[in-house]
Amino acid sequence: MEEVFVEDGAREDDQLLPAFNDDHGGVIVELKEPMEPDNFHSRLKASLFQWKLQGKKGVWIKIPIGLANLVETAVKEGFGYHHAEPDYLMLVTWIPVIDSTIPANATHRVGIGAIIVNDKRELLVVQEKNGRLKGKGIWKIPTGVIDQGEDIFAGAIREVKEETGVDTEFVELLAFRQMHKVFFGKSELLFLCMLRPLSFEIQKQDLEIEAAQWMPLEEYAAQPFTQKHSLYKYINDLCVAKLEGSYTGFTPRPITSCFNDSISYLYVNKQDLTRRVLSPN
Amino acid sequence: MEEVFVEDGAREDDQLLPAFNDDHGGVIVELKEPMEPDNFHSRLKASLFQWKLQGKKGVWIKIPIGLANLVETAVKEGFGYHHAEPDYLMLVTWIPVIDSTIPANATHRVGIGAIIVNDKRELLVVQEKNGRLKGKGIWKIPTGVIDQGEDIFAGAIREVKEETGVDTEFVELLAFRQMHKVFFGKSELLFLCMLRPLSFEIQKQDLEIEAAQWMPLEEYAAQPFTQKHSLYKYINDLCVAKLEGSYTGFTPRPITSCFNDSISYLYVNKQDLTRRVLSPN
Repeated sequence: MEEVFVEDGAREDDQLLPAFNDDHGGVIVELKEPMEPDNFHSRLKASLFQWKLQGKKGVWIKIPIGLANLVETAVKEGFGYHHAEPDYLMLVTWIPVIDSTIPANATHRVGIGAIIVNDKRELLVVQEKNGRLKGKGIWKIPTGVIDQGEDIFAGAIREVKEETGVDTEFVELLAFRQMHKVFFGKSELLFLCMLRPLSFEIQKQDLEIEAAQWMPLEEYAAQPFTQKHSLYKYINDLCVAKLEGSYTGFTPRPITSCFNDSISYLYVNKQDLTRRVLSPN
Repeated sequence: MEEVFVEDGAREDDQLLPAFNDDHGGVIVELKEPMEPDNFHSRLKASLFQWKLQGKKGVWIKIPIGLANLVETAVKEGFGYHHAEPDYLMLVTWIPVIDSTIPANATHRVGIGAIIVNDKRELLVVQEKNGRLKGKGIWKIPTGVIDQGEDIFAGAIREVKEETGVDTEFVELLAFRQMHKVFFGKSELLFLCMLRPLSFEIQKQDLEIEAAQWMPLEEYAAQPFTQKHSLYKYINDLCVAKLEGSYTGFTPRPITSCFNDSISYLYVNKQDLTRRVLSPN
């Protein structure tokens, strides 16, 4: 990003805000130094006029939480909120009259449900201390939310270790559920992952977990709640199908981007793709 | 949610803020009426003291954008930003000394890539007006970001219609990619969906699409960019495998929640699950 039009010679109250061009015909202002709201106001107005003349589209202002006294000024100048993280608030406005192409905020959190069976056909299950199942005596697979920037398979392994103390390795992603209005109007993607246990001793985490155990799969399936709740029933069906070797899910394969050197993961039905490549037809 | 401890008899500056209990031992304040920052400050301080005595954990304050003048006060009292949407900012603080279980903000946006082949083995492809591939002459499958609350299969059908004018129906989800740091440090899940065309005439959208056409699959595969970029190569492999009938992805099946009547979708390898249920072993 190249920095544009900082005018050092201008009078202080006419100074423009330092801004960077983005890849989409807009500009980004990242406020860092404290300033008086009045000073910010005059600089913002002068800058907006300039950007309008230059045909800029989206204008982004990132305000760190330490400069919360400047938020009101930006809002009064027509900026809306775009998103916030613990340490900053991002505001945006769209200059042209034509359709805005401001990208959407993040819409989903990503959860994992871990299906782990030992060689006695016992499923690793927990009872939770909080949430809707609290105090109901229902045994469920360990679930959790993956961290910002965390890969699904890594998050599954981490959550199981944290909640139950059991070490695992990733086998396959068996299914996923998309559900809306799960928190603050946002959606959730819950990925059901089969993991292979590498250790068996349970050390439950006290903050969130009431109890944890290895439970015969038949017992899990026989819980009235499992019978009634279709996701729990599917978990049992998927588990049995996978143990019988009659089900194939998705496996992560590393892929590189053409734009940088970072590695991401494509989850595919590897068995079907490999079979195809190996067989001559 | 039950409303708690609004004390009408208290002096104005000692009044507590109206708050609702959440399901996790915390309280939620939704500001609606304008008030002076000083008045808000004294009420917030009195309320925080009360909540501390009551053993409350997380305290949430939702401030509509019209009351942006109150943001600074909440920050000065120790609140951090949690998330923001165009019309409000959510702040949160954690009262107890022990580990916070404040849920994470949304971390992912969800994109779709649409793989659509007609009966001449031609792939529906576009060139984009913006972004990194702008002006490079590269043909790619239509992609887009799904809307808040939109199902993946519905978003795929909508994006294809918007970008190319082609009507489609959902066939199967072939694979997905998880990629980090795609926008504002957030991650993206890109779902590759195979759709069946129901109409064939192309009417491209002008805002984002430079050109659109049905392109012989071999031509798509032969683009140097397809050869170089592993995701593009996978798209070709998946497409060919699917056309040959040698690949099975995931299909959405409706499931109901035990907590309410809403329907969500579980994406599974339906073929494998059905085969298992039908066969006696």
